[in-house]
Amino acid sequence: MSSSSLISQLVRSHLRSVSGYRPGSQPPPGSPVLKLNTNENPYPPSPRVLEALHHLDAEHLRRYPDASAQIFREAAGHLHQVDPDWVIVGNGSDHLLSLIMAAFVDAGDRLVYPWPTYALYPTLADLQGAQKQAVPFPKTFDLPVQALLQARGKVTLVAAPASPSGTAIALADLEQLAQRVSGLLVIDEAYGDFAPSSALALVRASERVVLLRTLSKGYSLAGLRLGYAIAQPPVIQALNQVKDSYSLDAIATLLGTAAIQDQDHLGRNVEKVRRSRQWLAQQLQRLGCQVWPSVTNFLLVRPPVDAEQLMLDLKARDIYVRYFALPDLEDKLRITVGTDAQNALLCGVLADLIS
Amino acid sequence: MSSSSLISQLVRSHLRSVSGYRPGSQPPPGSPVLKLNTNENPYPPSPRVLEALHHLDAEHLRRYPDASAQIFREAAGHLHQVDPDWVIVGNGSDHLLSLIMAAFVDAGDRLVYPWPTYALYPTLADLQGAQKQAVPFPKTFDLPVQALLQARGKVTLVAAPASPSGTAIALADLEQLAQRVSGLLVIDEAYGDFAPSSALALVRASERVVLLRTLSKGYSLAGLRLGYAIAQPPVIQALNQVKDSYSLDAIATLLGTAAIQDQDHLGRNVEKVRRSRQWLAQQLQRLGCQVWPSVTNFLLVRPPVDAEQLMLDLKARDIYVRYFALPDLEDKLRITVGTDAQNALLCGVLADLIS
Repeated sequence: MSSSSLISQLVRSHLRSVSGYRPGSQPPPGSPVLKLNTNENPYPPSPRVLEALHHLDAEHLRRYPDASAQIFREAAGHLHQVDPDWVIVGNGSDHLLSLIMAAFVDAGDRLVYPWPTYALYPTLADLQGAQKQAVPFPKTFDLPVQALLQARGKVTLVAAPASPSGTAIALADLEQLAQRVSGLLVIDEAYGDFAPSSALALVRASERVVLLRTLSKGYSLAGLRLGYAIAQPPVIQALNQVKDSYSLDAIATLLGTAAIQDQDHLGRNVEKVRRSRQWLAQQLQRLGCQVWPSVTNFLLVRPPVDAEQLMLDLKARDIYVRYFALPDLEDKLRITVGTDAQNALLCGVLADLIS
Repeated sequence: MSSSSLISQLVRSHLRSVSGYRPGSQPPPGSPVLKLNTNENPYPPSPRVLEALHHLDAEHLRRYPDASAQIFREAAGHLHQVDPDWVIVGNGSDHLLSLIMAAFVDAGDRLVYPWPTYALYPTLADLQGAQKQAVPFPKTFDLPVQALLQARGKVTLVAAPASPSGTAIALADLEQLAQRVSGLLVIDEAYGDFAPSSALALVRASERVVLLRTLSKGYSLAGLRLGYAIAQPPVIQALNQVKDSYSLDAIATLLGTAAIQDQDHLGRNVEKVRRSRQWLAQQLQRLGCQVWPSVTNFLLVRPPVDAEQLMLDLKARDIYVRYFALPDLEDKLRITVGTDAQNALLCGVLADLIS
C-alpha cells in the first residue's frame, strides 16, 4: 500500500472526493499589487485599534484569554441592542458557519442556498457529508423565496447583501423566508456594514434566524479573523457547545472591541466606499461592462470580453480581481472597490485591455 | 413547543446529551489572584514577541492573512528539522484536535486514550458521536501499551508528557504503540517543551503518527492561541481540507514565529521552571502530600486532606489550583509551578490549611 493510500483509507469516506474551498490569491504584504480580489476595505482600521494594539502587554499573551470574549460580546450587544448572551464570537464568520454545521447538520441533511453565492457554502455541505441544494437566483438577484422554502433545508443560507452580485436582498423577502423556513435560516451579513439595512429584527422575531457579521470588511480587519453571530440564546448555546473553549485569542478580542466601539470611523469609511463605488460603476459601464447595482464594497461586472482572459491580463499588470470558474459566473468578474486613485488606475488599464 | 425545545429539536441528536468540556477558571487580568490552575508559564514571553507586536502596522490588520501561515511553518520546520509541508498551524492545539476528529473520525468510530488524561479527549468523542474507550493507567502512570493496542481505536490519543500526572511517557512505549497501532496515533506534546525528549522521530518513522505542540505553555503564549501539528504530508493535507481557510490571524502568525525563533528565552524559562518544580515538590511532600514525578510545569498532588475542600479553601484565599471531579482524580489536585515567590506563598498557606 502506498504511503498516501494508507492515510486516505483512514480519512472519513465522504471527504475523499471533496476538493475544498479555494480562497482568493493573497500576495504577501508589500507586494506591488493592486489587490481588488478579496474585498478588503481599502482604508485602514480605526486608529483606536492600533492604539489598543500598541498598549497590549505581556500579560495578555501569557494568560489564557476569556473563553467567552465577554468584553467583545458586551460591546456588540450594546451596538446591536441585544443581550450579550445573544452573541457568540469566532475566528471570522467562516468559523461560525463551521460551528453551525457542527451543531445542526447531520450527514444526509440538506443545506439550501440561492445560487450563485459565497462558494464556501457548498464546500461546507461536502465537508459535513450533507446534501446541498442550490436554488437559482433570477437574473435580477431577487431572492427566490418560494423555491428556497420548497427545498426544506435543515439550514438555509442567504448572504445579504448577496455575494458575488453585491445586490441588496429585500428585507420583506427575508422576513417571509424567516416566518416559514423549516430549519435554521442563516443570514450572512458579511457586507452588512455597507448596506442601508440589516435583518437584525428577524432575529428578535424568530429563534430560527442566525445573523452573521464580520469585522473583515467594513472594519478593515480581515487580518484579525473576527466574526460574530447574533441569535436567540438556545442557538448560541448550541454553537458554544461545539466550539473550542479558547478559539478566540486575547488580542483579537481587545482589538475587535476597540473597532466596533468606533462607529464614526466605520461610518466615514463606508461613506467613502459608497461614493467611490458609484464612480467606478459608471466608468465600468462606459467601458461596455454590465454592472449589477451594489450595496457593498465590490461590483459584479460582466465585461464585453472574455472574463477569465481579462482577469489574467489584469493579473499580468499586477491588478488582482476575482474570477470564479463556477456555473453562472464564468462570464463575470468580481471587483473590489478601492480608493479613488486605485479605481482610476484600474479603469485606465481596463480601457486599454477592453478597447 | 417551548422556545428552547424547538431549537433542541434542530440540534444534532448525538449532541443533546453532551455536557461539553469545562475549562479552568479564568479570572480577568489584574485580579488579585495567584493563578496556578491552568498551567500558564509564570514568566513573560520572549521580548522579541512584544517587539513584533509593537511593530505591527495597519496593513497586517486590513489585509487577509496568509492562509497557510507559511512564515510560521518555515520557522517550525527549521526548529524541528522537518519540511514546512509537514506542519499545520491552528488556533491552539485544541483546534488541531478538532480538525483530527473532523478529518478522521466518523460517528461510531472509536477514540482510545489512557485515563486519566486531558479531559477534552472524551468531550471530542462525544461531540463527534464517536465511541470512546478510556484505558486505565497503572498507578505509576506507565503507558498501558498492550491495552491501548487491543482497544483498536480509529484514533489513539496520548498526552506525552502525561497530563494531569505530569509524568514522562517512555519513548520506547510510544514507539511500540506507533509500530502496531491500527489507526492514527496522536501524541499530544502540549508540555513537551519542559520534557527532556520528544517523540518527533516517530513521525518520521510512521505516517500514522501526529505530533501536537502548543505555544501556550513553554512559550508563555496561552493568550495567543497558537498550536501546530507535525505529521507526514498525507495527514497534513487531510487536516487542511477540513480547516477554515483563514482560521489563523496575521498577528498570531507573526508573534508565534518570533517566539519559536527565540530558543534561548525558552531554554532559560524552562530551566527556571524545572528548578522551581523541584523545590515545590519537596515542600509539598514535607506537608504530607503524595507528589508524582513531573517533567512538566505542574504537579499532580494527593493531599493528606480532602482535595476538593482544599481547592475551595485555597480559592477563598485567592489561590486557584485545579480540581477535577473525575474518576481517579477526586482525591488529587493539579498545581501549576509558579515563580519561586508564588510557590513559597502557596506552601505557606497550605501549611496552615493542612496542619
